[in-house]
Amino acid sequence: MAKIALIGAGSVAFSTKLIQDLCATKSLYGSTITLMDINKERLYTIYDFAERYSKQTKADFHFKLTTVRKEALQNANFVISTVKIGGYKPMETEREIAERHGYYRGIGDRICDYYGGIGAYHQLKFFLELAKDMEVLCPDAWLIETANPVFEGVNLITRETKIKSIGVCHGHFRYKDILEVLRLNPKDIEVQMAGFNHCIWMTHLLYKGQDTYPILDNWIKNEANEYWKSEKFLEGKPWDIEQLSPGAVNTYHIFGLFPIGDTVRSASPWWHHTTLNIKQKWYGPTGGFDSEIGWSTYLKTHDEKLDKLRGLVKDRSASLTKEFPPVMSGEQHIPILNAIENDKETILQLNVPNNGSIFGIPDDVIVEIPVVVSGRGIQGIHIGKLPKRLMLYVLVPRMRRMEQILQAFLERDMNGLLLMLMEDPRTKSLEQAKNLLEELLAQPWNSEVANHYKW
Amino acid sequence: MAKIALIGAGSVAFSTKLIQDLCATKSLYGSTITLMDINKERLYTIYDFAERYSKQTKADFHFKLTTVRKEALQNANFVISTVKIGGYKPMETEREIAERHGYYRGIGDRICDYYGGIGAYHQLKFFLELAKDMEVLCPDAWLIETANPVFEGVNLITRETKIKSIGVCHGHFRYKDILEVLRLNPKDIEVQMAGFNHCIWMTHLLYKGQDTYPILDNWIKNEANEYWKSEKFLEGKPWDIEQLSPGAVNTYHIFGLFPIGDTVRSASPWWHHTTLNIKQKWYGPTGGFDSEIGWSTYLKTHDEKLDKLRGLVKDRSASLTKEFPPVMSGEQHIPILNAIENDKETILQLNVPNNGSIFGIPDDVIVEIPVVVSGRGIQGIHIGKLPKRLMLYVLVPRMRRMEQILQAFLERDMNGLLLMLMEDPRTKSLEQAKNLLEELLAQPWNSEVANHYKW
Repeated sequence: MAKIALIGAGSVAFSTKLIQDLCATKSLYGSTITLMDINKERLYTIYDFAERYSKQTKADFHFKLTTVRKEALQNANFVISTVKIGGYKPMETEREIAERHGYYRGIGDRICDYYGGIGAYHQLKFFLELAKDMEVLCPDAWLIETANPVFEGVNLITRETKIKSIGVCHGHFRYKDILEVLRLNPKDIEVQMAGFNHCIWMTHLLYKGQDTYPILDNWIKNEANEYWKSEKFLEGKPWDIEQLSPGAVNTYHIFGLFPIGDTVRSASPWWHHTTLNIKQKWYGPTGGFDSEIGWSTYLKTHDEKLDKLRGLVKDRSASLTKEFPPVMSGEQHIPILNAIENDKETILQLNVPNNGSIFGIPDDVIVEIPVVVSGRGIQGIHIGKLPKRLMLYVLVPRMRRMEQILQAFLERDMNGLLLMLMEDPRTKSLEQAKNLLEELLAQPWNSEVANHYKW
Repeated sequence: MAKIALIGAGSVAFSTKLIQDLCATKSLYGSTITLMDINKERLYTIYDFAERYSKQTKADFHFKLTTVRKEALQNANFVISTVKIGGYKPMETEREIAERHGYYRGIGDRICDYYGGIGAYHQLKFFLELAKDMEVLCPDAWLIETANPVFEGVNLITRETKIKSIGVCHGHFRYKDILEVLRLNPKDIEVQMAGFNHCIWMTHLLYKGQDTYPILDNWIKNEANEYWKSEKFLEGKPWDIEQLSPGAVNTYHIFGLFPIGDTVRSASPWWHHTTLNIKQKWYGPTGGFDSEIGWSTYLKTHDEKLDKLRGLVKDRSASLTKEFPPVMSGEQHIPILNAIENDKETILQLNVPNNGSIFGIPDDVIVEIPVVVSGRGIQGIHIGKLPKRLMLYVLVPRMRRMEQILQAFLERDMNGLLLMLMEDPRTKSLEQAKNLLEELLAQPWNSEVANHYKW
């Protein structure tokens, strides 16, 4: 019977899934779940949902609610954090500013996840505050960190505090898109992926125990062109078709392993993303998830879903189990809790310290790899060597960018912010980068950031 | 009494200095020096010089000569290599080609020393062949490697063969230019530099035991502007004034330690080098050593010196000791030999495996650091942590470029050559880089290179 704190519980879309998963996990019944958010209206909404859904599924939990973080953390065994400080709006404005300075689609969105070097500030600061509170109030608890930037965040927490932190993402499940297009039954398939969050690569694809990369290669050679002309591809939502887009295939051919999930947009080469036309060539008619078309489609879909969900949750007469059937949602958070709390050995895809798993990555750097989760804790599965070209041109630079973001943040180094921009392939001159930096830091929501960093 | 092989002895400018140093080192008298070159005319010239200079200085050596490398290596204790395959001419043509494709001043000259990724091929191949011959003919000999690229070369040799290799450069002596301008007596000064070859940084500057960086800072604040308007600066040869140029000072301010010697041109930020005008702003009226003005000045001076030297060496009636006084030239090669052979503890600045000296660099990567040379061999002096910003924006990327060059070379990877170009800040599109690569590989002297690398 665990004590679980859900920080940022007002993120309705995410919290409903967690409650669904909890209620589908009998071995956690009897646990106490403290829902915490600073937004009271949202907090009451999700609390109400939790109580009703729990009753409708005959689950047995003690739900509490609070607006005070420290109250939620007191004696917790597990802390799940989903907080995005400030929401999406500032990010959108920063992107517009960056475009005016010659940075098509903004800075940081592709190179160092979509919060970038400047935008990462609020998140990193929050991560540290949360983990430092935990050191006092629940020093042995696990911090399950699912807010971005996961890569930078989990590295920061594990280096700067004593808290055990695990990064969780669901992007790796996109390998299933490959199986669907190749008409392979997931039950006969064994897939392995490794790398960093939003930068994972398919090391193995086995069908009934046989290497199935050749089947994928054959599809690329003989069927891909037809697929790229099909309605499924041309009309599909960008996030549904990116996994087998020409850009993903080209990235595979350049680096030697297939990119999976967010990797397709985060770790494909910069020359796939210089204009909308070029993005469309590589990522289909919308230009992919990150293009002006793709991203606004995403935001619209996201808002519609959210509105629908909120309406449902607020409608006290609705059958919640109809929309949220009492089966596991696919998210990994509750399976982690269950595996640790009840010593139920489970293999999951998580972000944990490397400790020798991927050759050539320091032990303390966080990698996204398959791990065994159990009462013993979390144990990485050994991956070994990745292709040298992939290491040198993708993983090592991505790791260095993480180090740059943390160095600038921890040393309050304005020069670091500028030097990161100077490494952007779109930067033509020192003035261009300086002007952008200046304008970004002049935005009202960045006044604290402007004060934090010093020349 | 050592057995020394001098490979590429026909490099007159270099070999005369070595012979001068040998003759000034009594404790090596009695040794055998085998001069080897494939150019017979040059070989006889330097042999003749050696015999005469040795006689005039009353030194005692056995000079031999051969055009067969394996003969020179047989049972050698020390092998000194200065070979530059193909000379400067192809490099100049490659630079012109690159400029036509939008790469002002060519590729690789600044980012990965002036032989670059493609041009490094002939040198790396030669280094490996030489070291592999040594494994058979003189497996315990030291290979003193002074031809560029020293950084890539010594890493390659120490990883791929069993030969003990040391990289030697003289660029670090440029710290003396700082002392001269600051009017500090070198006798009271203790300087330490560390990094990679052509990428070394002044970690300490002590005057009578006191930290003297503040004096340098004061000079920058109060006197630098005047110095930059002085005749000494405005009329000086680029290589004589670069050490205290505005570009060097700016590089110091950006990265936190003063760059020394070739570092000023190799590791200063790319935005110092985009046009001649900008180069002139940072590196004085010539635009620095690497500009079209600076480099042609260098080549002209170099040729004149060489002609004069060759004339002198060929003139059998000339007093050689007048031009080459029997004192140490300042080069480090013969002091290395003497320290090892006669167990004479000497502190030198050499390129050796890191083995924990600089924090954050793998043990097997070659660093340029102060070392103690003696009968025990070569022992690095511990440096410790360098500023994090310097590591993240200069040393780690420079190390990665070395790894990229070796990966491409060893895996025969054409993609690697292209991906290196795609990381160049001047590359605007895939086509631009591909076209350049294609044209470079189509040059007659690159036919073997074109065959070596595969898509």
